Amino acid sequence: MQYGGNGNSFGNSITNGSYSFSNPIFASLAGYSSMALLKMLGMSTYTIIQRFRTGNFPTPEDNIYKQLMNQLGLSTTNNNNLGNKNDTIERARENHLNDLENIIPFILVGLFYVGTRPKFDCALWHFRIFLLSRILYTIAYQVPLPQPTRTISWLIGYSSIISMSIPILRSIQF
Amino acid sequence: MQYGGNGNSFGNSITNGSYSFSNPIFASLAGYSSMALLKMLGMSTYTIIQRFRTGNFPTPEDNIYKQLMNQLGLSTTNNNNLGNKNDTIERARENHLNDLENIIPFILVGLFYVGTRPKFDCALWHFRIFLLSRILYTIAYQVPLPQPTRTISWLIGYSSIISMSIPILRSIQF
Amino acid sequence: MQYGGNGNSFGNSITNGSYSFSNPIFASLAGYSSMALLKMLGMSTYTIIQRFRTGNFPTPEDNIYKQLMNQLGLSTTNNNNLGNKNDTIERARENHLNDLENIIPFILVGLFYVGTRPKFDCALWHFRIFLLSRILYTIAYQVPLPQPTRTISWLIGYSSIISMSIPILRSIQF
Repeated sequence: MQYGGNGNSFGNSITNGSYSFSNPIFASLAGYSSMALLKMLGMSTYTIIQRFRTGNFPTPEDNIYKQLMNQLGLSTTNNNNLGNKNDTIERARENHLNDLENIIPFILVGLFYVGTRPKFDCALWHFRIFLLSRILYTIAYQVPLPQPTRTISWLIGYSSIISMSIPILRSIQF
Repeated sequence: MQYGGNGNSFGNSITNGSYSFSNPIFASLAGYSSMALLKMLGMSTYTIIQRFRTGNFPTPEDNIYKQLMNQLGLSTTNNNNLGNKNDTIERARENHLNDLENIIPFILVGLFYVGTRPKFDCALWHFRIFLLSRILYTIAYQVPLPQPTRTISWLIGYSSIISMSIPILRSIQF
Repeated sequence: MQYGGNGNSFGNSITNGSYSFSNPIFASLAGYSSMALLKMLGMSTYTIIQRFRTGNFPTPEDNIYKQLMNQLGLSTTNNNNLGNKNDTIERARENHLNDLENIIPFILVGLFYVGTRPKFDCALWHFRIFLLSRILYTIAYQVPLPQPTRTISWLIGYSSIISMSIPILRSIQF
């Protein structure tokens, strides 16, 4: 990105600011954040698929979906559990909640972290490790894989967020 | 917004950046995001109103609210369900959780989407459709309206988020 | 932050934009947001500690943690409640959910609020009051303190978010 007629490239890099796709760290955060959010949004679709597979829906008005499935000749593993808890669905919902508790803080801390002008490689590895940890967490929760796989994958992502918050708190004068 | 003594308006528009209220797309996102967040925050107040109406509170220390209601002569529909599930309250809470799962990703994806410099009309319609879909979702869940109204209104908002994430992922070099 | 060779300090302050650590309001939001997010992330660790103390874990694969505790000779207050609700853990989880419902909107509204160029003192007091209200809320929920301490501390933080959203909505032309 060129700033016309000034000829002061250092001035330009300051002026452009951290929050622009011309800053590769911000562009990288945008990409990894979007992928993490799409993974999280995918939990909604996954939960709906599990609801249709098990015939377990949360509200009485959802009964039309059961009637539809019966008309289409699709059997469900359990037809009498409207509003009851189902292990498969609870796994999907708890996974989704854990995503909310971790992915959203990652993006918000990440936005401020970009403003502290970290080294590109250091930032990129934080983003990569976080995204991989969340994918592994989801696999470990839904398969499920033996513990402590799920706990460790959660802990890696969690540590990445904590690590990004340190330069933010160090750059603030209270 | 004028940048003094340069006379290069194209340079200015670049320098000002995407993240400023002088960018109408960012200003628009700020407005629609705030309204969506206020709608979401409204679910807290709505849940509290339902708790007082039904006399259903989550913790033992909330008993003082029941005693207060009795002293004021306000009858509740059910006095013995402390900590138990109540359909009306679960509807409000599930609605609130669904807002978290959709409105927060909308704003975060929206922030990065603004950085991809989309066309103003295209961005504005994404924001408008999303906000309307969430208002319709809330009405459909709380009235409740017959299904698939709730599912379709959720799907419209969901699609709006996915649609905004495409230009972000396309503008990133991995 | 100096912009080289221009000599127009007003132009500079506009060009630098709201979203930079050179803007003390943005730097302040970054600090208070990070502290609020770390408090929220702390709820995950607190919940895990409570799970080990009570021997209450959410999934069958977590049984290895119970076996580990037995091998180490650590007794748990209850050994037979896998997947069942436990009051202490529900308190931690509900607190965590309430943090999500309030801290995330605070940061997102705060980001747009910074763009409306509020007075520094006014912004700083919004951030301070919000963070204090969330710390008090957590203490009131977990000790627990008698009501209405928890309700009032929630209401103070909630009001701070609503108050920040007003200048955003006033600065938008619809």
